[in-house]
Amino acid sequence: MLKLPNTPISIFTVMSKMANDYQAINLSQGFPNFPIDVRMTEIVARLAKTDIHQYAPMAGYPPLLEKIAQITSDHYHRKVNPSTEILITAGATEAIFATIQAFVQPQDEVIILDPSYDCYEMPILLSNAKPIRISLKEDYSSDFEAISQHLSTKTRMLILNNPHNPSGKIWTENDFIQLEKIIENYPDLLILSDEVYEFITFENKHISINTREKLKDRSLIVSSFGKTLHLTGWKIGYLIAPENLVKEVKKVHQYLVFSVNSLAQASINEYLNVFHIEEVSKLYHQKRDFFQNLLKETAFELLPCEGTYFQTASFQNISDENDIDFTKRLVTEFGVATIPLSVFYGNQTDLKRIRFCFAKDDEMLMKAAERLLIIK
Amino acid sequence: MLKLPNTPISIFTVMSKMANDYQAINLSQGFPNFPIDVRMTEIVARLAKTDIHQYAPMAGYPPLLEKIAQITSDHYHRKVNPSTEILITAGATEAIFATIQAFVQPQDEVIILDPSYDCYEMPILLSNAKPIRISLKEDYSSDFEAISQHLSTKTRMLILNNPHNPSGKIWTENDFIQLEKIIENYPDLLILSDEVYEFITFENKHISINTREKLKDRSLIVSSFGKTLHLTGWKIGYLIAPENLVKEVKKVHQYLVFSVNSLAQASINEYLNVFHIEEVSKLYHQKRDFFQNLLKETAFELLPCEGTYFQTASFQNISDENDIDFTKRLVTEFGVATIPLSVFYGNQTDLKRIRFCFAKDDEMLMKAAERLLIIK
Ligand SMILES: CSCCC(=O)C(=O)O
Ligand SMILES: CSCCC(=O)C(=O)O
Repeated sequence: MLKLPNTPISIFTVMSKMANDYQAINLSQGFPNFPIDVRMTEIVARLAKTDIHQYAPMAGYPPLLEKIAQITSDHYHRKVNPSTEILITAGATEAIFATIQAFVQPQDEVIILDPSYDCYEMPILLSNAKPIRISLKEDYSSDFEAISQHLSTKTRMLILNNPHNPSGKIWTENDFIQLEKIIENYPDLLILSDEVYEFITFENKHISINTREKLKDRSLIVSSFGKTLHLTGWKIGYLIAPENLVKEVKKVHQYLVFSVNSLAQASINEYLNVFHIEEVSKLYHQKRDFFQNLLKETAFELLPCEGTYFQTASFQNISDENDIDFTKRLVTEFGVATIPLSVFYGNQTDLKRIRFCFAKDDEMLMKAAERLLIIK
Repeated sequence: MLKLPNTPISIFTVMSKMANDYQAINLSQGFPNFPIDVRMTEIVARLAKTDIHQYAPMAGYPPLLEKIAQITSDHYHRKVNPSTEILITAGATEAIFATIQAFVQPQDEVIILDPSYDCYEMPILLSNAKPIRISLKEDYSSDFEAISQHLSTKTRMLILNNPHNPSGKIWTENDFIQLEKIIENYPDLLILSDEVYEFITFENKHISINTREKLKDRSLIVSSFGKTLHLTGWKIGYLIAPENLVKEVKKVHQYLVFSVNSLAQASINEYLNVFHIEEVSKLYHQKRDFFQNLLKETAFELLPCEGTYFQTASFQNISDENDIDFTKRLVTEFGVATIPLSVFYGNQTDLKRIRFCFAKDDEMLMKAAERLLIIK
C-alpha cells in the first residue's frame, strides 16, 4: 500500500514543463531570468580555487552565519546570535520541512492560510498531523475570526507567509495586534513565518514577526538568498528563531541534509560585502510598475501587489470558467505560462484569478504583455 | 512537550569541533583534505558565467541525469532510464531521508544493521515507525539468521550499506544469495541500499544490489558525488530505483528541497566528461595500503578494509576501557581525532574499536601515524 497515493507533481514543475513544451514565455514558476551580477561570477571563480569544497559545518558556514545575523539584526532592530539563533538550510523549503517535522506530532493540528504556497502540507502529513486550511479574505487579508474559531490546544503551529505568495500582500501592524490577541491563551502554539520575500516590498515596509515582542519567542522565521540575490538555483535558505527552537530544528536538519553546499555559502558570504540588499526592493518596485502598466489595457483586472515578485490578476471579464483550464489555454494558445490560484487552496476555491511572475527582463515582460493584450 | 528530546548533536560535528578546538589531525569525519582537480575549478569558473543559476528541474539537471544513467548502466550491467529511474538529491543524506519518509508508515518496522551510519534512524522515528537494530557479526558480515528472525509482515524496509561505513566490508555474492532466500516470502519488503562508496573498493569489486535479478525491483540505491569526486561539501547525491519507486520518493523530494544546487549539478556533469571514475578506487587503494603500513608498528590491531576510505582498528592491546573516552583522549592528549565505533550501535556495544578516515594527503597520514605510534 502506498503511503502517498494522492500527491500530484507540483504545479511549478507542470507549468514550467508546459512552458517549455509550447515554447511559451514562462511567467509561472517564480525565478528571475536576468543574468547574475558579474561580481558574483568572479567570487565563485575565485573561491572555486580554494579548499572550500568539503562539508560545511552542520549549522552553516560561520562567516555567512555572521553576515545573516548582521542583515537580520538590521531588519529586526535587535541582535540575532549567529551561533545559536540561525540555521542555514538547503533552500527555504528544507527549512520549512525540517521545522514542521521537528515540532509537529501525530494528531497535532497546523493552520495554513489559503491560498498557500504548496510545500507546507507534505511535512504536516508526514508528521501524521492534520493541516487545517483557512481561507484568507478575498483581498488576501487574514480572517482572524476564522483562525480564532479553529484554534485549540491541539493547534501546534500556525504558518504565516509575509510577504505573501501568491498575493503579494504584507502584514500590517494591526494584523499582528489581532494575531497577538487571539493566540494569547495558547502558549504552546508555534508560528512558522515564511518571510522569503522580506526584502522585496514596495510602498509599505515589511514588518518581520521578529519585531513583535509578544510573538518573537514562539516564532521561527524562514528566509532565502534564492529570492533576495536572484539565485533560486543555489538553494540556500535559512531559519531564524530563538536558540531553544533552532536547537530542535538542527536535530532534524543534521540527519536530513547534514550541511549545505559550501561553495555557495562562501560565495554568498563574500557577495554580501558588495551587494546592498535595499537594491532588491527598488529593482522589483520598478518591474512591478512597468508590468502593471503594460497590463493596463488588457482584459485582466490587476489586484494590489505590495511585495514579492508576483502579480495576481482576476479574469472576471474573460469568459473562461476555470482558472486551471484558463492557464492551460494561456500557454497553448497565447504562449504565456502563469499559475492558476486555485491550486493554492485545499479545496480548489476558484476565484478566477491567476499569478504572473514579473522577475523578468523588460523585453520578456513586453512580449508577454503583447500576447496578453489580444485575450478578450 | 518536545518531539525529539533525546537527539544529541551528531558524532561528526562533535569530533570535528574537538579536532578544531585541540588543533588535532582530523581523521574523524569522512572527507578528503586534498585540493580539487584544477579541471573542475575551471569548469566552475566557466559555468558561473552562464545562466545556470535558477531552479534546476525537480528531478535533476537533465544532462547530469543522463551522465548518471551512463555511469550506473556500466556499473550495473543494465540500462538505467535517466528520466524515470534517477532522482538527484541534496546529498545522499536527503535521498535516504526522502526514501524512508516516502514509504515507511506508522507502526512499520525498518531493519538497520549495526554498526550503522547515523542518519538512518531519524527519518524512521519521524515516520512514527520502529527501527529494529540487528548487529552485524564481529567481522562485520551480516547475520542472516538474526535478520530472518526479525522479519515479519510489519517489516517495511531493510537498510543495507555496501561498501559498509564504518567497517569497509563489502557484500559477496553469497551474501546476496542468503538475503534473497530469507526475504523471498516478504514481497512488500523494500531494500534501501546505501552504496555511496560504490566506487571505492580494493581487492574485490563492489556488487550493486541492482545487479541482482531477484532484488533490484524492490531496491532503492543511494549514491553520492561527494564521495566519488572528493566534493563532500557540494551535497550532490542521487537515488536509483525502478520508476514506480522513484515516483514515490519524488513526491517527498519536491516538497523537501524541490531541487538541488544547479551550478554544482552542471559542473559535475561537465567534469564527468574528463574524469575517470576508476581512478577513485586506485587512489584510495594506495592510500589504504600506505596508511595500513604506517600503523603496522602501533599498538592498534587493524581490521580488514575492502572498500570506503575508512580504516577500523581495535585497541584491545591498549588499556583504555571505553571507545568514546579513548577517542577523547586521542584528541586531547595525542592530537588525533577519530570516531568511536560504539556510537554506530543502537545499544552502544563497545568492542574497543575506532575508525580512522584515510582520505588525507600522505603528509597528514604520516604525521598522524607518528602520534599514534607513542600510544601503548
Ligand atoms: C520551488 S519552485 C516555485 C518557486 C516559487 O517560489 C513560486 O513560483 O512560487
Ligand atoms: C555527514 S558528516 C559524516 C561524513 C561521513 O560520511 C562519515 O564520516 O562517516
